[in-house]
Amino acid sequence: MSCSGRKRRRRTVSRLPNQKGMEFKLVVAVRKDIRISPGKMAAQVAHAAVSCAMKAKGSKKELYSDWMREGQRKVVLKVEDLVELEQIERLAAAAGLITDKITDAGLTEVPPGTITCIGIGPAKEADIDRITGHLKLA
Amino acid sequence: MSCSGRKRRRRTVSRLPNQKGMEFKLVVAVRKDIRISPGKMAAQVAHAAVSCAMKAKGSKKELYSDWMREGQRKVVLKVEDLVELEQIERLAAAAGLITDKITDAGLTEVPPGTITCIGIGPAKEADIDRITGHLKLA
Repeated sequence: MSCSGRKRRRRTVSRLPNQKGMEFKLVVAVRKDIRISPGKMAAQVAHAAVSCAMKAKGSKKELYSDWMREGQRKVVLKVEDLVELEQIERLAAAAGLITDKITDAGLTEVPPGTITCIGIGPAKEADIDRITGHLKLA
Repeated sequence: MSCSGRKRRRRTVSRLPNQKGMEFKLVVAVRKDIRISPGKMAAQVAHAAVSCAMKAKGSKKELYSDWMREGQRKVVLKVEDLVELEQIERLAAAAGLITDKITDAGLTEVPPGTITCIGIGPAKEADIDRITGHLKLA
C-alpha cells in the first residue's frame, strides 16, 4: 500500500513493501486533470479496487488469494488525463491484466459520465510495473 | 459515492445519490489527526472498502447484492481521532453492522500499526446514518 515504479518521490525507498518480499499489487491510476476532493477521489479509488478485486475473485482465484494473503497491497498513481488513462487501459488489457475503468455518476463534483480512474490488477508487481512503472504516486 | 448525513458542506444536496432512490451504502471514516497524502488515504479507504465488501459477500449476501446492484455507493467521512473512530466502531458493531478497522503497515508515511480508517457497511443508509450521520465529508 505504498510506493512503486521507477520514479520515486520519497526517501523511504528502502522500506517499500516490494522490498519486503511482496509480490502482488493492485494499482489505481487517477486523472490529475479533474478537480475532485480527496474524499471523492478515495471513493473512486475504492470503487476501482472493489471492482478489480471482485473480478479477480471470480476469474483469477489463485492470483486473488495470493494478493489477499499478502495484505491486498494497493498503490495509487496519477495519469495526466483521459488520453493517458485509456492508453494504460489498452496496454493492461493487451497484457491480460484485469482492468476496471470507473465512470462517475456525476452527482456531486464532476459532470455525469466523467471517467475518473482505472484499476489494474491484482497482478504480479513486475507485470503491472511494465505498464504503470513510469507513473508517479497520487 | 457522495455526501450523506445531517451536516452537508456542498450546494449539491438536491442531487445527492440518496435522493436518487439509492438505499444502500458503505461508509469509510478516516482520521483527520494523522498526516497522510491523498493517494495514501485513497489506498487505505480502498482497503477498508474491499475488506467490508468481502465480509458482506461472505456473510450478508443479499445485502451485498443489493449494494452492488445499486452501484456500490461509497461515502468517505472524517473522524477527529482514534478515540472517535473506535467509538464509531463500537456503535456500528453493537448495531450488527459490518466493520473493518484498517491498520497501516507503516512502511511509508505513518508509524507501523497506525489505525487510519474504518469501513462500515455495506448496509441500509438509515442504519449507517444513525451512527455516522453527524460526520463531515472527507
